[in-house]
Amino acid sequence: MLMQTTKDSGSARLSALREELKRRGLDGFVIPISDEHMSEYIGGYAQRLAWLTGFGGSAGSAVVLKDHAAMFVDGRYTIQVREQVDEKLYDYCLVPDVSMGKWIADNAPAGAKIGFDPWLHTKGWADQVGKALAKKGSELVAVDTNPVDAVWSDRPEPSAAAAQVHADEHAGRSSAEKRAEVADWLKDEGYDAAVVSALDSIAWLLNIRGADVDRTPVALSYLIAHADGTADLFIAPEKVTPELEKHLGNAVTIRPRSEFDGALGTMKGKTVSVDPDYGVAAIFRLLEDAGATPVAERDPVILPKAIKNTAEQQGHRKAQERDGAAVTQFLHWLSVAAPKGGETELSAAAKLQEFRKATGVLKDNSFDTISAAGPHAAIPHYRVDEESNLPIQPGSVFLCDSGGQYLDGTTDITRTVWIGPGEPSAEQKDRFTRVLKGHIAIDRAVFPQGTNGSQLDSFARQFLWQAGVDYGHGTGHGVGSYLGVHEGPQRIAKPGGAYPGTGQELFAGMILSNEPGYYKGGEYGIRIENLILTVEREIVGGEGTSLGFEALTFVPIDATLVDRSLLTQDEIAWWNDYHAKTRDLLAPQLEGEALAWLEAACQPL
Amino acid sequence: MLMQTTKDSGSARLSALREELKRRGLDGFVIPISDEHMSEYIGGYAQRLAWLTGFGGSAGSAVVLKDHAAMFVDGRYTIQVREQVDEKLYDYCLVPDVSMGKWIADNAPAGAKIGFDPWLHTKGWADQVGKALAKKGSELVAVDTNPVDAVWSDRPEPSAAAAQVHADEHAGRSSAEKRAEVADWLKDEGYDAAVVSALDSIAWLLNIRGADVDRTPVALSYLIAHADGTADLFIAPEKVTPELEKHLGNAVTIRPRSEFDGALGTMKGKTVSVDPDYGVAAIFRLLEDAGATPVAERDPVILPKAIKNTAEQQGHRKAQERDGAAVTQFLHWLSVAAPKGGETELSAAAKLQEFRKATGVLKDNSFDTISAAGPHAAIPHYRVDEESNLPIQPGSVFLCDSGGQYLDGTTDITRTVWIGPGEPSAEQKDRFTRVLKGHIAIDRAVFPQGTNGSQLDSFARQFLWQAGVDYGHGTGHGVGSYLGVHEGPQRIAKPGGAYPGTGQELFAGMILSNEPGYYKGGEYGIRIENLILTVEREIVGGEGTSLGFEALTFVPIDATLVDRSLLTQDEIAWWNDYHAKTRDLLAPQLEGEALAWLEAACQPL
Repeated sequence: MLMQTTKDSGSARLSALREELKRRGLDGFVIPISDEHMSEYIGGYAQRLAWLTGFGGSAGSAVVLKDHAAMFVDGRYTIQVREQVDEKLYDYCLVPDVSMGKWIADNAPAGAKIGFDPWLHTKGWADQVGKALAKKGSELVAVDTNPVDAVWSDRPEPSAAAAQVHADEHAGRSSAEKRAEVADWLKDEGYDAAVVSALDSIAWLLNIRGADVDRTPVALSYLIAHADGTADLFIAPEKVTPELEKHLGNAVTIRPRSEFDGALGTMKGKTVSVDPDYGVAAIFRLLEDAGATPVAERDPVILPKAIKNTAEQQGHRKAQERDGAAVTQFLHWLSVAAPKGGETELSAAAKLQEFRKATGVLKDNSFDTISAAGPHAAIPHYRVDEESNLPIQPGSVFLCDSGGQYLDGTTDITRTVWIGPGEPSAEQKDRFTRVLKGHIAIDRAVFPQGTNGSQLDSFARQFLWQAGVDYGHGTGHGVGSYLGVHEGPQRIAKPGGAYPGTGQELFAGMILSNEPGYYKGGEYGIRIENLILTVEREIVGGEGTSLGFEALTFVPIDATLVDRSLLTQDEIAWWNDYHAKTRDLLAPQLEGEALAWLEAACQPL
Repeated sequence: MLMQTTKDSGSARLSALREELKRRGLDGFVIPISDEHMSEYIGGYAQRLAWLTGFGGSAGSAVVLKDHAAMFVDGRYTIQVREQVDEKLYDYCLVPDVSMGKWIADNAPAGAKIGFDPWLHTKGWADQVGKALAKKGSELVAVDTNPVDAVWSDRPEPSAAAAQVHADEHAGRSSAEKRAEVADWLKDEGYDAAVVSALDSIAWLLNIRGADVDRTPVALSYLIAHADGTADLFIAPEKVTPELEKHLGNAVTIRPRSEFDGALGTMKGKTVSVDPDYGVAAIFRLLEDAGATPVAERDPVILPKAIKNTAEQQGHRKAQERDGAAVTQFLHWLSVAAPKGGETELSAAAKLQEFRKATGVLKDNSFDTISAAGPHAAIPHYRVDEESNLPIQPGSVFLCDSGGQYLDGTTDITRTVWIGPGEPSAEQKDRFTRVLKGHIAIDRAVFPQGTNGSQLDSFARQFLWQAGVDYGHGTGHGVGSYLGVHEGPQRIAKPGGAYPGTGQELFAGMILSNEPGYYKGGEYGIRIENLILTVEREIVGGEGTSLGFEALTFVPIDATLVDRSLLTQDEIAWWNDYHAKTRDLLAPQLEGEALAWLEAACQPL
């Protein structure tokens, strides 16, 4: 997915963009990493920031003024931005310490016209930055077409991949049933329609999948769901197969994606719900201009999508079981190959990919594998490429965070292992064991209905806190069913700060990751991640509904890194029980040395 | 503090109020429990709701329409409102299930004029209710004088007690130093002045105390702090002694409280910070009418007041030590007297009061003692009176939550004890021990700087959650230094729901209560409460600042109610350590049988 922009080409591209802005009478322009659906992963056609600046991170923005430009990235990318983006062309600004609105207001001349593409930003962003500019007499101006596209001569076309029907066997409920539920909600709330623009919401609601965006099997489209249960799907005609038409039936009108703007323009007098996090500024503007009333309201698909039905839950169990066997084969291979030396982050990632592909049913990775040796593991969102590729040193800690997309489920697992020979340091074992204790505390948590993930987050951190350390990311994110590996609305995270929780109450059926970690900058990193399913817990004498978690991921955790003396009897029992289940689930899928390795790795602690 | 309103007088009072409303052309009026400072505890002169309806709870409101009236109370008072307020005169509405604004809009005729006293409500409340009424074509109208006062013939005068100087020895910092800090803040923020109307903020800032409000040693007054470091104190002249004048010095202008409105009217062109939680609607309105710009911003005194300085911390330790000896004498007495039968909730509360008074330095209780036998203990905010008074049955659980006001500190402690003979049930021991484990988890918590109380709250609940139960109140509130027993801004509580947390980061020096509980309706209740001080923790190998707690309250916890098998070795060590310290601190203050009882109660578990 990485785009190649040499620093030389960066200068030419920036000049070309500035010419284009001048031509249009703009004093500046904002270039985010975003698409028309506020997707987390975006197609090549929308990789404008990477093309312009060479930046390969997953979050960030650039602001280009007449003779001044800046990159805005968060704490994850402070090193990467320096490596990839020419400091002669761009200042580096750390968000949220530096506010983009304030930076523009301070650096653009008074009265400046700063362009933005209203299809790539939320209304909230535009309102906020617009306000900051207005304070200095400048103006944020929506452009009709993106000026980057005008100078990006070899810009890829949006994917033309056909949309696929997602079988009821995997979806568990028919699209008609789901749409009826949305229609009921619209009627209850008094809305005429909802604009659904999050690609995974459309995919889930219609039981369709696609191949238009890296790592997430969605199809580029928009949907307008009406209170009478019908819907309009706006999608490029080349994506529509006869099978898809048949599947969608009469209640869903298939229209070219290019007609979406126009369709919003015909909604005069209607009250339309639009999710302010996924519906871009242009949608609100087009509805307002048409005389409709857009109401900022959560996409009605988000909550039912997050609460997995029985078929989705069972699919996840199967997918994790299959994926776990592949990861276990990889860990066995690693335990043999890596201590000899000569393996690298890239060779390991490739080997893992082989094992996943050998399942015969892998559709894609669910994200770019984080194969992180030594100090790279201390970068929580590290992504390996030819330039960064490190050897996996014998006698070191290796971290691998990866996942697969299968028709029956999406997986996401992190294991951190000791690469022999030798022994991890006492500190490494201490930190690993504290991370493990936090992982176990989440897995074993019991809590009343009405609790949100932020109320559980400290359980994962408490043992690290006791040692005066912590980790700078969330503890858990939602996961889709053959959809996004990051899915809302639930999270396990601190209530504020860099990756805050959402306040969403947890419901039985919600899937989350459970991934505490510890990162020692420049030295090593640790993370232990399983997916867990929220389930009801029957408690004798209990009052009200209690919830807990069922682990979905079963792959051995490296006992070499455990300081057993730090574990309680309950935690040791958890470990032994987890590994007995792991053995039972995976043994039938393995043979020979891999099976023997599994048996050894699953011995009681 | 209870007002006596028989149901007969209730009818006459309601009629008189309706006549008065008619005379003023109002279709209704809202009567909250509130004063001009949004105090938690209010003086008798402001007890309008109690006078009108007979309701003796600490939170609630009435709405009186022409031929319809309703009481609005929260879940704590659903039983009490039925007992005290005549159902023939008032409907009972449970908040937040029923919104007052919506109820008025639904029950008042269209075009109704509903009065409210802008000195008794926040601007936020007035805006919200006003909006709800406007939807139905009705209007919320600010009255100039309160119509209840017009018909309340024997209304008490506001207290005329003299304000006292609070010695620097206890305050730890001079008022001049505190005022300079506020002035710096005003200059930094670009404000000309701050209106400080929370009575405890004024008391803390000026190092004065008073006796105008039950249970909280504050003086009725308003303060306007100016950016030049001067201040205007508006206070009834009869409260001002020569000593007070001398203490306040030249930088503080003492003016009659009645001139406050007028002073706001002279602030044309000024930007004035007003705390939206404590500054009533009238203050915002008067400033706006005068051409000033009120800015809703947290009272600048609140945070420094919450972060206790060394003198305040040391004062608290001394106060708790003294108070702990009094409570221990009470527990010893109770252990002898109660098992014989014949003691009651009232006799126990009186005895406790005796022991506190015997210290010779008790200024007041810090709140009305919760002396709760058997099923009354299941009501977390129970308050005993002659009518409700229950005998303390031998062979039952007794809960006592109480506190004292001393010049050097404010105390708040709950102990739950088994009244012999016999043994508590297995369930009672199980629940008590889970509450204890939660209490210990908070006391022992270690967490990084930047953590708020809601991130710790689940530590207190986890063991109850594991048994499928919980408690419906917060885990901890801030406590003042010879000021309010409930003090913001910090809290340990769930992030949402009935008593939500505040998101305030904890700082070393903040005092909190630590009071998990369990309540079995109609049977028994448990709560274990100590005050704890937030302190820095040195951790070898730690990264960044770590915080933890130091217990301030030392009084034996009843081992009879403990199921030792549910405790970990660490928890047993905590218990033994806590009781060893308790013995060391209290033994020098006790003698004879009380000392022997202490020694026995502090034996290792």
